Amino acid sequence: MRLDLAYDGTDFRGWAQQPGRRTVQGTLQDALAVLVRADPPRVQVAGRTDAGVHARGQVAHVDLPADVAGDPLLLRRLNGLLPDDVRVRRAAPAPDGFDARFSALSRTYRYRVADGPEHADPLRRRDVLTWARPLDEQTMTAAGAPLLGEHDFAAYCRHREGATTVRALLELAWSRGADGLLVLTVRADAFCHSMVRSLVGAMLAVGDGRRAPQWPGTLLDRSARADDVAVAPPHALVLEHVAYPPDDQLQARQAVTRNLRA
Amino acid sequence: MRLDLAYDGTDFRGWAQQPGRRTVQGTLQDALAVLVRADPPRVQVAGRTDAGVHARGQVAHVDLPADVAGDPLLLRRLNGLLPDDVRVRRAAPAPDGFDARFSALSRTYRYRVADGPEHADPLRRRDVLTWARPLDEQTMTAAGAPLLGEHDFAAYCRHREGATTVRALLELAWSRGADGLLVLTVRADAFCHSMVRSLVGAMLAVGDGRRAPQWPGTLLDRSARADDVAVAPPHALVLEHVAYPPDDQLQARQAVTRNLRA
Repeated sequence: MRLDLAYDGTDFRGWAQQPGRRTVQGTLQDALAVLVRADPPRVQVAGRTDAGVHARGQVAHVDLPADVAGDPLLLRRLNGLLPDDVRVRRAAPAPDGFDARFSALSRTYRYRVADGPEHADPLRRRDVLTWARPLDEQTMTAAGAPLLGEHDFAAYCRHREGATTVRALLELAWSRGADGLLVLTVRADAFCHSMVRSLVGAMLAVGDGRRAPQWPGTLLDRSARADDVAVAPPHALVLEHVAYPPDDQLQARQAVTRNLRA
Repeated sequence: MRLDLAYDGTDFRGWAQQPGRRTVQGTLQDALAVLVRADPPRVQVAGRTDAGVHARGQVAHVDLPADVAGDPLLLRRLNGLLPDDVRVRRAAPAPDGFDARFSALSRTYRYRVADGPEHADPLRRRDVLTWARPLDEQTMTAAGAPLLGEHDFAAYCRHREGATTVRALLELAWSRGADGLLVLTVRADAFCHSMVRSLVGAMLAVGDGRRAPQWPGTLLDRSARADDVAVAPPHALVLEHVAYPPDDQLQARQAVTRNLRA
C-alpha cells in the first residue's frame, strides 16, 4: 500500500522510530498494528524528517494483509486510530515496483520566514521562523544559484560513514507571498542529513548582509561539514511533495537510486 | 495610537475583557500598563472577536502618554511584554478622527474548511474546520447571493436589547485554494453577534445537500434568531482585514456609524 501523510512535527522526535520516543513512524506503525492484529508492520518513507520538521506531502509504503488492504474503510479506520497531529490523506494499492524511498525522483521542501513584526502571524508560529532583520529574497536566490545541479554537498551535510554526499539540487528559490512571508522552495533528487536546514542557514546569512553573496557557492569546495554554516531551526521546514516516475519506470528508478546511494 | 494586531484565539476567551478570564484585550492592556507605569489604558477594537476566533488584521486604538507613544522602540517593547499568541504588527500615531470601531468602513473575515481526508493538514488544525462530507463551493456561493446587500439579519444574529440587526453584506464567496482548502471570504460594514458563524452554518447545510440552495435567503424573512441555523465552530474563523476611509473622512464616517448603530 502507498500511504500519503501529513503531520505537525512539533511534538514528534522526527520520523524514524526510536525506543521510548514519540515518532511519526512509531505512531503510524502502532495504529497499523491494531488494524492487522499483529506486530507493527514496518513502514518505509520517502523523507526521514528530523525532530520538529513537518510534512504535508510525505509518502510511505507498507505491506498489509489482503483483508486490511482491501477494506474500503481503511483510510477512515486508520485516521480514527491516529492522534490529530498526523493524518493519512490517501491509502491506495501501490503499483508494481513502487518503493516510497528508492522509486522517488525528487523531494520538495519549503521553509518559511517572517522577517519583520508586520508579518507576524501567531497562527503560523509552529511553522514559520521569526527573523529579526529584513531579508532580501532576490539576493538569497542569487546566492543559491551556484548550488544548483549535481555537486558534492559535504559542507552542507552531517557526515555518515560510507554514505555519499553527492546530490542533484534541482530548485532553490525564495519568494515573498501575498501574506508577506518569505518562502524557500528547495527540490533535489534526495537530501543528506541536515542539508536543507544548512542551505537555509547559509542563505539567511547572505540575506541579512552578514556574508557575501558568493559565500554559499564557495562552500562546495570543502570536503567536510562546514562548522561556520548555522543549521536553521527545524520548525519552519515542511516536506511538501515527493515526485515519482510513471508506473512503468518505478522499478528502473529503484535500481538507479539504490546504486547511486551505495 | 493605532495598533494592528494578529492573534491565535485558541487560548483566549475572546477579545473582550472579562474578570478572571484570559482575553486578548486584557492581555494587551496589561502589557500597556507596564509601559505606561499606571493603570491599564483602555483599548478599543474594530472587531470584538468571540472565544476561539483568530485575527490577522485586527485594528485597535488607545491613548498613550507622549513619551510612550513617541518611543521608537515601542513596538519591540510591547511585543517583548506580550505572550507569543498575540503580536502587534504596527504601532503608529492615529490620524485625527480615527476610531478603530466607529471609523471602520468594513470588516473582512475568512472561514476555512477541509472537506475530505485528502485535504487534511495537521499544521492547520487550529484554524481549519474538518467536514466529513464533500462540499460544493459554487453551490454555497450561489446560496449566499440573496444575502448580499442591506438586510435585517435578525435570523443570523444573537439578539441584543436595543441593537439593530440591519447590516450591509458586501461580499460572501467561497473558493477552493491550491491546497484544496475551502475558504469563505465574507465582508460587511459590520457584523452582529455570531453572524459570520451563522452564515457559515447555513451555507454548509446547503453545501453538503441537507438544505435547498434557497434556504439561506428565505431566512431573511424572519424577525428573530433562527434556531435551525447551526452556528459553525469558532476555531476556523479569522478576522483578516478592517478597511478605513481616507484620513479626511474618518470623523464623518464615525458620525454616520454611531448614528446607524443607535
